[in-house]
Amino acid sequence: MAKIRAAVVGYGNIGRYVIEALEAAGDFEIAGVVRRNAADIPQALQPYRVVTSLAELENVDVAILGVPTRQTEKHALEALALGISTVDSFDIHTKIPELRASLDAAAKKAGRASIISAGWDPGSDSVVRTLLEACAPKGITYTNFGPGMSMGHSVAVKAIEGVADALSVTIPMGTGVHRRMVYVQVKPGYDFAAIAAAVKADPYFVNDETHVMQVESVDVLKDMGHGVNLVRKGVSGKTHNQNFEFNMKINNPALTAQILVSAARAVLRQQPGCYTLIEIPPVDLLPGTREDWVRKLV
Amino acid sequence: MAKIRAAVVGYGNIGRYVIEALEAAGDFEIAGVVRRNAADIPQALQPYRVVTSLAELENVDVAILGVPTRQTEKHALEALALGISTVDSFDIHTKIPELRASLDAAAKKAGRASIISAGWDPGSDSVVRTLLEACAPKGITYTNFGPGMSMGHSVAVKAIEGVADALSVTIPMGTGVHRRMVYVQVKPGYDFAAIAAAVKADPYFVNDETHVMQVESVDVLKDMGHGVNLVRKGVSGKTHNQNFEFNMKINNPALTAQILVSAARAVLRQQPGCYTLIEIPPVDLLPGTREDWVRKLV
Repeated sequence: MAKIRAAVVGYGNIGRYVIEALEAAGDFEIAGVVRRNAADIPQALQPYRVVTSLAELENVDVAILGVPTRQTEKHALEALALGISTVDSFDIHTKIPELRASLDAAAKKAGRASIISAGWDPGSDSVVRTLLEACAPKGITYTNFGPGMSMGHSVAVKAIEGVADALSVTIPMGTGVHRRMVYVQVKPGYDFAAIAAAVKADPYFVNDETHVMQVESVDVLKDMGHGVNLVRKGVSGKTHNQNFEFNMKINNPALTAQILVSAARAVLRQQPGCYTLIEIPPVDLLPGTREDWVRKLV
Repeated sequence: MAKIRAAVVGYGNIGRYVIEALEAAGDFEIAGVVRRNAADIPQALQPYRVVTSLAELENVDVAILGVPTRQTEKHALEALALGISTVDSFDIHTKIPELRASLDAAAKKAGRASIISAGWDPGSDSVVRTLLEACAPKGITYTNFGPGMSMGHSVAVKAIEGVADALSVTIPMGTGVHRRMVYVQVKPGYDFAAIAAAVKADPYFVNDETHVMQVESVDVLKDMGHGVNLVRKGVSGKTHNQNFEFNMKINNPALTAQILVSAARAVLRQQPGCYTLIEIPPVDLLPGTREDWVRKLV
């Protein structure tokens, strides 16, 4: 069997773990890594080609985008234009339909496929929510996150002018209500109050109770552990009190990266177009044949 | 939008709840109910056509099979031969690949589709197991059932000669090990010891610790509540100690019936062939458009 040739675009939090997940998967090989600075090659990338543009790599089947969420569309469109399928973990829930429409057109034009928002939320949690909706069509689902750092939220804070480093911790308050604890290291000469106001006005934070605190070092607060408690109580047919619960306690970027790699396998099995994880047969995420997994998992 | 015309084949434990789930779903209408005795029409079936053969019903899109699991293949092949797609909750895990191959050929010949083993285990649990395999490819999944009655196991005991009524209760012992508590009402003139031996030799029971007890009345023991505790601890990429857990406490036939009805919607959206739930995009289980669900659930 020919191995799937994957390019890793971006080498931040996610990209590092994507490399590990690709190395651990038997059916992939790493075609190369795309970074802004191809001269800066860390130890973990020594075995691989490091380039500044995806176009420099040969025979790439799929590009795994580990770029900041707001740069996802740009990088995905570039890859599709090169005839390369893409996967990403775009995480601004309200803007997913827009990204999906944009990449769907580009993917169909290229005869390739994209899977977007393939992390854990959006991502695997979305699949669980969909499944539970099918199990109990009437009822309420609550997704409770944390305690844990939110990478997307932290990146959003870091993008604010005057922020040297930042960390956003999500605290579950039950019934899907969350508190955001934001720790900010301020650059010299910047006003903390202005930064705090900018954080609270950001789309990532505007709907949640948000506390912003200034700290000397964000680094000593970092722990990649995260959690989910997803609960649905509802009605199957006319039968009430059907209770479902999904929990996880995981290393956040490691899980995101693993789901991206599983999706990178699935994307090559889809018709041209753009998909979220709920639109993909779950078995397509796994290596090997459907028949084997039906025997093992069904 | 034209409603989906569903026929319900069999009116036992599952069939009763299937009728309720169809009545609760806005996008279905009941084309009729197929029973061995069409003259015996209970109150809940008064509004519907009751017939002895699927061929007597007009314009059926999908047949929902609520028949004993060992009669599934026969009924599915009959429906497919009539050009009617099928869904079932066939629950003998080891024989699923065989049923899938048989119905796949028949479905493709008919230009229709079948979704098999669309209950909760096999079924929705299978989807969760598949998703968790994609989240943490290395590791162990344990599926712990109960406490609760197992319909499949109880039916298997009832099929044994000399059994007037029977109930098999599944007790979770952890790490996927189960005890089977089997309560049997014996017909006059039959030997309980012979029945107990037959139960323990049945494929449903042969791998588990099984206790068979004679009781005067099985009926007073019945409670349709059931549970699942599905646990996976594994490795995402090279990161260990990723912990996942799925729990439910549900009315068993009500959930099976609801999943059958959701699958009856999905089956009409698939290419000709036979599928298990892990091979179906989860969003296909839900009414309406993908776009709406992407907005709501992803």
